[in-house]
Amino acid sequence: MNPILEQCELRKTGITYHQAMNSKHDEDEQQRRQWGTRAWATLSALRARSPLIQCITNFVSMDLMANTLLSAGASPAMLHSVEELPDFTPNADALCINVGTLSPAWLPAMKFAGELAVKAGKPWVLDPVAVGASKFRMMACLELMSLKPTVVRGNGSEIIALSKASLDSSMGVDSCHESVDAVEAAKSLAQSSGAIVAVSGAVDIVTDGKQVIGARNGVAMMQKITATGCSVTALIAAFLAVDQLHALEATASALSIFGIAGEMGMDVAKGPASLRTHLIDSLYGLDEAAIISRIRISSL
Amino acid sequence: MNPILEQCELRKTGITYHQAMNSKHDEDEQQRRQWGTRAWATLSALRARSPLIQCITNFVSMDLMANTLLSAGASPAMLHSVEELPDFTPNADALCINVGTLSPAWLPAMKFAGELAVKAGKPWVLDPVAVGASKFRMMACLELMSLKPTVVRGNGSEIIALSKASLDSSMGVDSCHESVDAVEAAKSLAQSSGAIVAVSGAVDIVTDGKQVIGARNGVAMMQKITATGCSVTALIAAFLAVDQLHALEATASALSIFGIAGEMGMDVAKGPASLRTHLIDSLYGLDEAAIISRIRISSL
Amino acid sequence: MNPILEQCELRKTGITYHQAMNSKHDEDEQQRRQWGTRAWATLSALRARSPLIQCITNFVSMDLMANTLLSAGASPAMLHSVEELPDFTPNADALCINVGTLSPAWLPAMKFAGELAVKAGKPWVLDPVAVGASKFRMMACLELMSLKPTVVRGNGSEIIALSKASLDSSMGVDSCHESVDAVEAAKSLAQSSGAIVAVSGAVDIVTDGKQVIGARNGVAMMQKITATGCSVTALIAAFLAVDQLHALEATASALSIFGIAGEMGMDVAKGPASLRTHLIDSLYGLDEAAIISRIRISSL
Repeated sequence: MNPILEQCELRKTGITYHQAMNSKHDEDEQQRRQWGTRAWATLSALRARSPLIQCITNFVSMDLMANTLLSAGASPAMLHSVEELPDFTPNADALCINVGTLSPAWLPAMKFAGELAVKAGKPWVLDPVAVGASKFRMMACLELMSLKPTVVRGNGSEIIALSKASLDSSMGVDSCHESVDAVEAAKSLAQSSGAIVAVSGAVDIVTDGKQVIGARNGVAMMQKITATGCSVTALIAAFLAVDQLHALEATASALSIFGIAGEMGMDVAKGPASLRTHLIDSLYGLDEAAIISRIRISSL
Repeated sequence: MNPILEQCELRKTGITYHQAMNSKHDEDEQQRRQWGTRAWATLSALRARSPLIQCITNFVSMDLMANTLLSAGASPAMLHSVEELPDFTPNADALCINVGTLSPAWLPAMKFAGELAVKAGKPWVLDPVAVGASKFRMMACLELMSLKPTVVRGNGSEIIALSKASLDSSMGVDSCHESVDAVEAAKSLAQSSGAIVAVSGAVDIVTDGKQVIGARNGVAMMQKITATGCSVTALIAAFLAVDQLHALEATASALSIFGIAGEMGMDVAKGPASLRTHLIDSLYGLDEAAIISRIRISSL
Repeated sequence: MNPILEQCELRKTGITYHQAMNSKHDEDEQQRRQWGTRAWATLSALRARSPLIQCITNFVSMDLMANTLLSAGASPAMLHSVEELPDFTPNADALCINVGTLSPAWLPAMKFAGELAVKAGKPWVLDPVAVGASKFRMMACLELMSLKPTVVRGNGSEIIALSKASLDSSMGVDSCHESVDAVEAAKSLAQSSGAIVAVSGAVDIVTDGKQVIGARNGVAMMQKITATGCSVTALIAAFLAVDQLHALEATASALSIFGIAGEMGMDVAKGPASLRTHLIDSLYGLDEAAIISRIRISSL
């Protein structure tokens, strides 16, 4: 709400602006503390239990994803062969599938791994990288969506394209209209798919189709580092592995934790490459005080 | 020219050495300013337009190539599946093909992408990594050369091997003679292929078969970082995307810009890994003053 | 031996504890100097000869492995196509095979490269990453073991699983019992395979089935960086390339050199990502004094 309008509204109620702001500030502060406490608890559980996270992902992001998972306390495993999945996937604590460098050779393993995770009752996350780039990619992502991912995370364009295609059987790959609101697209996709949908952006959005949560951590320069999106998706998988019953909250927490690590990294970074280094260092060293003072999650 | 010989020559003309050196210095300074202004203009256009650069490249270099492109202001995309190319490649602003971890499974996509780029009038760059390593690799690179890349960039051995094989139908993979002059090989390859040919080395050489330009930026330690060669090839593709009509100049500019970022990184680096970090940070932060004061491009 | 028991034993001999400790200290110091001198000589040879090391490895580790090899002075090459192996592998100075992201498409090349290396009399090293993760992976590693690697390096779980499976034709993938002593498993595997076996851990163990050597360099945080295990395996291959006749010593030296680089990196690191940077910088700059003062190798 516009602060000037807000003052007008408040005047009608007889509450002074100063009183209202203090009250609002207290409420915000309380909400922040609750989210901070929750995020810290999940990160602590992650560090204590070191869940095994299987990633079937693109070639560009494997290094940063693995290092993100290790720094957060998880155990990454990048197995992708169909032959290994029946032995391995049911033993993993969560699965992350990312179509960045998709090929017909890898798609069957992605689908099979998703099926095995669902069958074993393990959470799995889909990152529909550049889903609008080709018909082949869109069809692959729709097939993966039908396997009931726990969470889907993408940027605004990706979620809008996927949401539109999920509704429209005659979809084309040119369905990426920035004019469509990413929040509405995310809600629609969450409702039609049953997945939690997360949209990365200046404000990260997380929704189950009804509730919409905003996470406002992170810095713009993170977009100048390849694979930060892929890496936060992997971190979501790790958070789900230790807090499966609260997928919405775990997803928002993972997004903010990664963003906080980026903010702390930015304090000492001199550019995108040193930010990448400091982000991972910060994620490794993150403590409760930093999380509680920095976390910015709220209902929208 | 040897400075002592130069003095003798000058004496015959009646011009004092001091006068001549001042004049030469002014001319060099003017040429440097012109190249600096051009390189800065191209980098500024790149940052403003953020061209989409498709890379079909090797597994080792994907991370650094993507980060190089992002830091320079471009948008990298590492799609490599034949199924996606008709939808995607014509929409990319330039294409970079690199055979570092070549396989029969990837070669058809490399060739098809090259064809699509040419058909769409988009520039494309070939990096014939280790072209002399096997007959299979040499044959693949010759096939790719026949698809008319805009620019070919390699080190001396690679360009010599490729140039010799391009001339000689009975070529073998042992055609890498260091005794052959890389400049002559580059000119010959440029003439026979129609491509701009760039040779990385202590002095980077760029030629269209007639003109030969030397770019003297960079530091030796960059060779101790994997994928710096691959990354500068990707940067050439990005420069071509915004200055397609001046491929020779865009190539020389990209080589020097990357070299300048390396020089600035070297000022604070403590070894190859910190140099890698500082190089990317420097590329991201590069301004006009640094480029104009550091650029060292001249006709040979 | 327990220090209190040791004092009792010494008392019987009439030597004072102080005398004995001084003598032991001198002996340890001498052994350390000998190992330091040997490791420095091998690293110097590596820098001088820059051997060509072929790696057929996983997608996650390619970047760090290549940078590790470059920083140590070797020349990495990541070729993996069957079509190229007859031309290339016999010319490489050593081969490193790592099954981290194993697939049926890559296995034939791994086996063929191993055969070619043996035929050409070149050393080769196997890294059986996560060998117990699936039957497919275990069978692949057993096939690779039958091709007589010079060295096998893994962590305790991997070596125990591989050792047990090598002995037991009815093995399962669940053969990873931490209760089995890794040293005994390593000795058994070395005896049955003829390979030098290295086990990474708090103390790295190297054995030829009779002698057992312990290398105590490195820091715990190296396990929070992806691909450090893969990278030290590649470094072992590089050390073997210049000291093939002393595979046991070359392996122990490589493990300690990498560990020393990690220790020196740790002196300035702020987390896993900066440790990765400083480790590579330190490996590049490592000198004789640092090696001799820090190396901790001894017979067990």
